Formats: sequence, structure tokens, C-alpha cells
Amino acid sequence: MSQKLQEPTINKVSDLRIEDAKWITLKKIDFMDQMGKERTWEVAMRKTRGKAGVDAVAIGNVLLHPSKPPSTMIVIQYRPPLDSYTVEWPAGLIDAHETAEQAAVREFKEETGYDCRLLSISPVQSADPGMSNANMQMAMVEVQLEEGDAEPEQRLEDGEHIQRVVIPLSEFYERLVEYSKQERMIVAAKLFHFAHGMHFAQTQKYF
Amino acid sequence: MSQKLQEPTINKVSDLRIEDAKWITLKKIDFMDQMGKERTWEVAMRKTRGKAGVDAVAIGNVLLHPSKPPSTMIVIQYRPPLDSYTVEWPAGLIDAHETAEQAAVREFKEETGYDCRLLSISPVQSADPGMSNANMQMAMVEVQLEEGDAEPEQRLEDGEHIQRVVIPLSEFYERLVEYSKQERMIVAAKLFHFAHGMHFAQTQKYF
Repeated sequence: MSQKLQEPTINKVSDLRIEDAKWITLKKIDFMDQMGKERTWEVAMRKTRGKAGVDAVAIGNVLLHPSKPPSTMIVIQYRPPLDSYTVEWPAGLIDAHETAEQAAVREFKEETGYDCRLLSISPVQSADPGMSNANMQMAMVEVQLEEGDAEPEQRLEDGEHIQRVVIPLSEFYERLVEYSKQERMIVAAKLFHFAHGMHFAQTQKYF
Repeated sequence: MSQKLQEPTINKVSDLRIEDAKWITLKKIDFMDQMGKERTWEVAMRKTRGKAGVDAVAIGNVLLHPSKPPSTMIVIQYRPPLDSYTVEWPAGLIDAHETAEQAAVREFKEETGYDCRLLSISPVQSADPGMSNANMQMAMVEVQLEEGDAEPEQRLEDGEHIQRVVIPLSEFYERLVEYSKQERMIVAAKLFHFAHGMHFAQTQKYF
């Protein structure tokens, strides 16, 4: 992704016993269904959920600049679970004593370098409801840039290598489709669905 | 959700050892990062991925009717991982020998009762890239109804109780926000992001 960095490689994928897992675990749920029948369900969970009761926040964002089109910043990073580079909005886990709003402003600063203005926070949403209890909220933020502003430094944690890309909102969907065609790249479903919804609203013939 | 059904209840949540899990598992990934440093990552995986190489398909849909506004059908079902009713587009796992397109038409018929016309299929998207390798594609389908058509029977599997709700596209986002406020209900992130993207495109002041 960058000149100085090497391509990440997976050396080994091995079974992980739940007693050895630090971040995630598996649970079996015994439940009674709507017909009064006893059933079971298998679920993956994060072990890090804090007082907010929500695992993660994603940060939809609009960058405004005096002489450039309204744009959004996406981040590209290597994700071992997929052995691919993912295209996402900035996002992160909510720390134990944070609110989703606080986590959004903090994570946006860390991953993009920018201070932002929080416009809204979404209801709690379920990330992948058939498989896990993971949940998230989406913040929408705005960044007002001035002519000649330099790109700020990121404040990444050790081990984080995150490439920032600015995409004009008018090209959002098309650019994600292009990324999806590239080798070893995959767009995160939440980001793709948002851009797809924008594209649908702008191009549909129904109403 | 329906008069004849009872509220599902969770009786027990217990640790699930990977050797006892049928549907999902945990893996540890040893990888070399972009700086050449050896690191590990914990990942949850489905055990059911077939020849398509994709776990699941979601079915965005438009219902067209001579005298009703263009609408979409969402499905509401109890999801044990969240102990809540989730609001989603119809979706399902892709069977071992199916394509995503075949699974979309089959699942849409099973969950809604309708035959549909496939309009498009999205690139492969990553469901929750920090936590799992789960991936999916979104099909977009259209159903042309005639005046007086009766609502068709669903073809649900044993244990499936899925309520269908038809929402005018013009009320899509607002209705999902309303569902999110209801007790024991949560909207799936992919669906919410699509509707949010539509709403953003229709209400934003940027371009």
C-alpha cells in the first residue's frame, strides 16, 4: 500500500480454544422459541464491551474545503481475518468508560488526524445478527478545511498501518465498486451499503 | 410479534468449546505485519462456506404495485445472539453448491413467498472485518405485483418464524429509526446503512 511497507503474510492459522482467546469467545444459547420449543444457537462475542453496552462506532464523515468538492475520508488497512486490505470508514471499539460519541471523536482523530464536529449518532445496530451479538453505532461528522491546510499526522497505535483516501461524495459508490475489483481488497459491508443506498436514491426510477 | 406465538426466552448462555461447535469456530492467525513484525489476531469464522466462497446473501428488494407506492419488504425475526427481534432484508447462507444469485432467489422465495427478478448482484463485502472473516453479497431484486394479488405463503424451515413488513421506499429511513426505538428490537447494520445512505443523498446540502 505504501513504498516503505511490505506485504503482510499469514504464517499460520490454528484452532483457538476459548480459554486461550483474549478478544472474542463462543457461547451456546439455550432458548425457547416462539412455539415453546427448546432450541440452541451458537454465537460469537467480543469480550471487550464496556459501559456503553455497544461494541464499536463507525464514523461517516464529510470533508468540506473551499476549493474542492465535498468529500469523505475512507481508510484502508490490512485485516488478518480476511487476509485482505479492507476499505472502511474510520471505526473502532468503544473503550470501557467511553460513550459512543466520545469514541467517535477520539477514533476519528487517531485514524485521520482531523478534529471533527459531531453531527449525529445513529441508533444501535446489529453488525452480523445471525452469527454474533456484535453491535455498533454510526456517528456522522463534518470537518471544515481551509485553503492550504496541510494533511495532519495520524495518531496510530503500535501495529496500526492505516492509509487515508479522500473520495468526492459524487464518486463514492463508483470508487467502492472499483476497489472491490482489486486483488486482495474488500469493501466493508456497512460502508458499501451506505454508498449503495446513496447511489440507489440518486439513480432509481421508482419515486 | 404475532397473536399465536409466545415471546422467546433464553434459558442459559454457556461457554461453547470449539470442538463442540457445529456452525462457527475461532482461529488464531499468526501473521507478519507491514513492518515485518510477527503478530497474532483472533477471528471468528463460519464453518459452512461452500464453493461460492461467500457465506451469505442479502436481498435488497423493490415491490411494484399498480396502486401502491414503490415499497420494500423487510423481515423481522427473533435472533438469539441479540435476544432481540432484528429488522433485516431477507438473507441467508449460500448452500454448498449454490451461487450467490441462486441463493438470493431461493431465500427470497422462502422468506417472503415471492418470485423475484434479479436486477444486480454486488461485489463481495466483508460483514465485520475486525472480528470475523464473514462475507456476503447483496442482490437487488424486483417484484411486480398485480392489483388484487394475495400475499403468498412463506416456505419457512422448521424453527423459522419470520414476520414480513412492507415499507414504502419514501418512508424507509424513518421507519427504521422508529423500529430502533422499540423495546427488544434492533435494526441490522447493513440495512440501516443502506437506508441511511438513501436518506443522506436525499437530504444532504453538500452537492
